Amino acid sequence: MTNYKLQIVPLGGLEEIGRNMTVFEYRGDILIVDMGLQFPEEDMPGIDYIIPNIECLRGKEDRVKGVVITHGHYDHIGAISHLSPRLKNPPIYCTPLTAAIIQKRHEEYRGAKPLNIKIITEESRIRLGEFRLEFFRVNHNIPQGIGILIQTESGTVIHAGDFKFDFSPIGERPIDVGKIARFGERGIDLLMTDSTNAESPGYQISERGIESELDKIFAKTKGRLIVSTFSSLISRLQEIINLAQKYDRKVIVEGRSMKTIFEIALRYHALQVKRGTLVDVGRVNRLKDNKVLILCTGAQGEGGAALMRIVNGEHRRIRIKKGDTFVFSSSVIPGNERAVQCLKDAIYKAGGEVIHYQMMDIHAGGHAKAEELKMMMRLARPKAVMPIHGNHFLLVSNGKIASQLGYHNRQIIIARNGQIVEVMKNRVNLTRKIVNTDYVMVDGLGVGDVSGVVLRDRQAMASDGMVVIVLTMDREGRLHGEPEIISRGFVYVKGSQELIGGIKRKVKEIIHRNRGIAATDHDLLRAKLRDDIGQQLYTKTERRPLVLPVIVKV
Amino acid sequence: MTNYKLQIVPLGGLEEIGRNMTVFEYRGDILIVDMGLQFPEEDMPGIDYIIPNIECLRGKEDRVKGVVITHGHYDHIGAISHLSPRLKNPPIYCTPLTAAIIQKRHEEYRGAKPLNIKIITEESRIRLGEFRLEFFRVNHNIPQGIGILIQTESGTVIHAGDFKFDFSPIGERPIDVGKIARFGERGIDLLMTDSTNAESPGYQISERGIESELDKIFAKTKGRLIVSTFSSLISRLQEIINLAQKYDRKVIVEGRSMKTIFEIALRYHALQVKRGTLVDVGRVNRLKDNKVLILCTGAQGEGGAALMRIVNGEHRRIRIKKGDTFVFSSSVIPGNERAVQCLKDAIYKAGGEVIHYQMMDIHAGGHAKAEELKMMMRLARPKAVMPIHGNHFLLVSNGKIASQLGYHNRQIIIARNGQIVEVMKNRVNLTRKIVNTDYVMVDGLGVGDVSGVVLRDRQAMASDGMVVIVLTMDREGRLHGEPEIISRGFVYVKGSQELIGGIKRKVKEIIHRNRGIAATDHDLLRAKLRDDIGQQLYTKTERRPLVLPVIVKV
Repeated sequence: MTNYKLQIVPLGGLEEIGRNMTVFEYRGDILIVDMGLQFPEEDMPGIDYIIPNIECLRGKEDRVKGVVITHGHYDHIGAISHLSPRLKNPPIYCTPLTAAIIQKRHEEYRGAKPLNIKIITEESRIRLGEFRLEFFRVNHNIPQGIGILIQTESGTVIHAGDFKFDFSPIGERPIDVGKIARFGERGIDLLMTDSTNAESPGYQISERGIESELDKIFAKTKGRLIVSTFSSLISRLQEIINLAQKYDRKVIVEGRSMKTIFEIALRYHALQVKRGTLVDVGRVNRLKDNKVLILCTGAQGEGGAALMRIVNGEHRRIRIKKGDTFVFSSSVIPGNERAVQCLKDAIYKAGGEVIHYQMMDIHAGGHAKAEELKMMMRLARPKAVMPIHGNHFLLVSNGKIASQLGYHNRQIIIARNGQIVEVMKNRVNLTRKIVNTDYVMVDGLGVGDVSGVVLRDRQAMASDGMVVIVLTMDREGRLHGEPEIISRGFVYVKGSQELIGGIKRKVKEIIHRNRGIAATDHDLLRAKLRDDIGQQLYTKTERRPLVLPVIVKV
Repeated sequence: MTNYKLQIVPLGGLEEIGRNMTVFEYRGDILIVDMGLQFPEEDMPGIDYIIPNIECLRGKEDRVKGVVITHGHYDHIGAISHLSPRLKNPPIYCTPLTAAIIQKRHEEYRGAKPLNIKIITEESRIRLGEFRLEFFRVNHNIPQGIGILIQTESGTVIHAGDFKFDFSPIGERPIDVGKIARFGERGIDLLMTDSTNAESPGYQISERGIESELDKIFAKTKGRLIVSTFSSLISRLQEIINLAQKYDRKVIVEGRSMKTIFEIALRYHALQVKRGTLVDVGRVNRLKDNKVLILCTGAQGEGGAALMRIVNGEHRRIRIKKGDTFVFSSSVIPGNERAVQCLKDAIYKAGGEVIHYQMMDIHAGGHAKAEELKMMMRLARPKAVMPIHGNHFLLVSNGKIASQLGYHNRQIIIARNGQIVEVMKNRVNLTRKIVNTDYVMVDGLGVGDVSGVVLRDRQAMASDGMVVIVLTMDREGRLHGEPEIISRGFVYVKGSQELIGGIKRKVKEIIHRNRGIAATDHDLLRAKLRDDIGQQLYTKTERRPLVLPVIVKV
C-alpha cells in the first residue's frame, strides 16, 4: 500500500489572495479544485491578471477526471477559459449559479470552445476515478458556495472552499454545520481551510445585522441614495432590494458587471425582486429624489465603473447633485485606498455625502474570522490542518489558531505554492518536493509572453521615460548628418533644447572616440552609447530613462 | 478701513495630505506659514514629489516679511529648499529641532545657498511688518510643534498647525491649553484647524498608553526585537529607548533617516539616552538575542529601507532569523497596504513574527480626533472655523464637527486650494477668487518640467510598452531596406517573430499605399503609421503600446 499516497499539489493561493487551484492525485487519477486568477501586484504594470502555472500537468491531461469549482468568484474561476482547453476540456462540476457566472465569463473569451460543465448541488455524490466526492453548503459573500469532502482509499480530505458561518443569512440557507459534523465523525485526515481573515479576532457580522444598519440609512435619507457594493455579493443586493421595496424607492441598476449579475441571479432565482421595483435609467430624472435608489459598482474607486462616471459627470443619464447620499457597502481591497479617497473627495466636492463601512456596520466580509475558523476545526475534527487561501503570514496566523486548539506543529501544514503534501493512512506529510508555480501573466490576448525583461522595461519607462537616439552611419563608422534624439516620458523636448543639444554633442564625441568599434561592432557601440548617455542624463537630471540607440547603416 | 482686509491664500493642503503652505497678506505685507511637499499620486509615475505653486507671489517677493514653520515634517518643510531662493531667501522662523531638520534636508539639496533661519520658542513674540505673532505649544508626532496666533488690525487668526492633545506625553510637555484659552479670551476671528483625523470619533491614545503596551511585548519576548516606527516620531523613540534600558537590551539604530534623527535629537536634547545603550551594528552578532533591540525605519514596506534589507538578506550585518520579533509601531499610510503585506509575508517566511498596530495599541497618530477638535474649538472660541490639512472630504467632516458645536454654515469656511479667504472686522468671507495652484512636480533635479504629456506617455509605456519603427527612406518616398522594429516593454521580441513580421509587412503596405505622402509629408506619414500599426497591434494583442515611427532620410 505504500505506493498509494494521496498527493496534494497547491498550484496557487498559498502565497497570495488569488489564483486558487489545487491538484489532487491518487493512483494515477487527477482531481482539480478551482482554477482562479490573481490580480497583478503593483510592480507588474500593464498586466491584466495572473493564472496558475500548469506545467506539472503536462503529459497528464488524460488523467484529469474532473474539476470542481467551489464558488463563482474570479479568484476561483478566472483561469478556466485559459486552462480548460489545455487540459483537454475536462468536466467541470459546480452549482447552478457558479455555472452561470463561468459561462458568462467564458462567452467573453475570444475563440472559446464550449466548456464541459456538469451541474451539481450540495446533495450530489460523485465519483471521479479514484475520488469519491460529497459536498456541503457554506456561507460566503456569493451564494451557492460549497465545501468538498474528498475520499480516497488512503485518506479523506475536506477542502472547505471560501467560507464563513452566517446563521441568519439573507436569501440563502446557513452553512450546513450538521453535515460537516457528520463528515467529521467519519474521520477526516486533513482539513484545508480559508485563511483570509485569520488575523481578525471574533466572528463576522451576520448579513441580517447589515440589513438593519442599512435600514437606518434608508429611514433617514431624504435625497437620492446611490448604493455600491461588490456585484457578486448577491445577498447584499437582496437586502438593498428589500429595503428599496420597504421604503418605496425604485431601483436603477448601473454598471456592466452589476447588470450581468442581476440578469444571472434573476434567471436562477438567486434574487427575489417584486415587479415594478427595477426601472430603467431613463426614468431617473422623472422620479422624486426620495424615490430613487441607484445600485452600482465602483466603490473601489475603479476608473471606468458606473460610480466614477456618475461622480465625474461622464455618465450619460445620471449626474451627481447636492443632497445625494452615497453608501459604500463594501470594504476597501488593499491597494485601492488612495483611489477610494479620491472618489470620496470628488463626491464631497460635488455636494454629495458618503457613508462607508468604517462609519457604520454596513459591510461584512465573506471569510471566517478566528472564532469561526475554530468552529470549522471543531466540527470537522481533522487529524491535520492545512491553512490555504491567503498570504503566507495569514496561513501562519491560521496555523496559530489550530495550535490554540491543541494541534501540534507536525499536524499543521503550512505549505508554499507548489509544495507537495502527501496524505497516507494516519499521516500527513509536507514534502520538500516543489513543482514550478512561476507566474503566468495575461496581458491582453497574450498569455505568458510578458517576461521579467518586459516588466523591468515597463517599470523603467514608467518611472523615467525613454530616450531614442537615431544615428545614420556608413560602413567606415562615420556619422552621416546629425544624430536625432526622441524622448517620451522623460522631459518635454520643446523645453529642453539645451539638454538635447548636450546629448547630441556627447553622441558625436563617443562615436569619434570609438571610430574602430563604430565601423565593426554595433552591439558594442550601442552598449557604450547606452551607458555613457545614461550616465550623462543621470548627472544632469537625476533621472534614468531607458536609452535606446538605433543605428541605421547607409 | 474697507480696503484693509486680511487675505488668506491657502496654496496647498486643502485637497490632499501634503504641500501645506498658506499665504497671509495684510496692507501689502506677506506672511507665509509652512512650505511643505506632497508625495505623488499613483497616476504620476516617476515623480519624486510635488511642491506648492507660488505663481501668485511673483513680483511680490520683497513683501514677504517672513515664513513661520509649525513643525519639522516634510509636508510642512519639504519645499523650503526649492521655494526659499525664489522668494529672495526670507527669514524662516521655527523652533530649534525644526530648524535642525530643515538644515539637514537643505544640506542635501544641490547648489543650496544658506537659509535665513531664525530660532523662536513657544514664548517668542515677533512682529513681521503688519503681523504680530505669538505661539503656543502643541502635541504632535514630532516634538517642538507650535500653533500660531496671527494678529492684524483687522482680525486675529489662530493657525493651529498639526496638533493633538496628549496630557501625558513622553519626552515633551502637554499642549498648552491655558495659553490657547487666554488667546481665546482675547477674541479670535478665525481658527484654522487640522482635519486629518476628523473622521475618527473620540480621542487619540496618549503616548504613555503606547509605552505600557510596548512594555508587554518587551516583557515576554525572548528573541531579538526589531522595532520600526516613523523616524521623526521622537517620543516613540524615547519610549523604546526607555524600555530597552529597563529590559537591558542594547539598541542598534539602523537606516539613514533614523540615524539622522538620532544625531539631531541627541544634539538638541530631544532624546535622553543612557551611556552604553546605543551600540554599533558591528556588535549585533556578539550579543545574546535577548539583549538585542534593532530600531529602524521601513514599516511602510519601502524598498530600500533598513527593515526591507534585513528581511531580504541584503543588510551587510543583520540577517533575519527564526525567533525574531518585528514590532511595527506605526500605522500604514494609505497606498502602502500591499507593500506592507509583502513585507509581513517575507518576515513570516523567514521564521520571524510581526506585531502591528491592528493587534495591539502600539501606535497613536499625531492628529486630533473628533473630540479633540471640539476641545480646540472650545478653547479658542473663534467666530469662524476653517478646516485645513486634509482631503476635501476630511475638511467637510471637520466642518460637521464645528456645526455640532453650533457654528452656522457661513461660519464654517471650507475652501479649495488657492481660494482666497478674507478676514475683516467681525466677518470672515470665503471669496470666489482663486489663484493658480496647479501641481509643480519635482522629478530628480527637474522642477516643473514634467508635464501632463510626459506623464501620459509614462503611463502608456508602463501599461503596454513601446514599439519603435525605424524606416530608411529616399527623397521619392521609397523605402530602403527592411523597416527595423524595436520593442521595449511590449512583447519579448525573440518570442514574437510572427507579430514583428506582421508589423513589417503592414509598414511596407502603408508606405506603398501612401507613396505621395511618403515623399512629401513625413509628419502625416508618421501619424498614419502610428494609427494603423497601433490598431493592428491592438487587434492582435489587445495591448496599446506607444508606437514611435522614426524616419531616416537618405
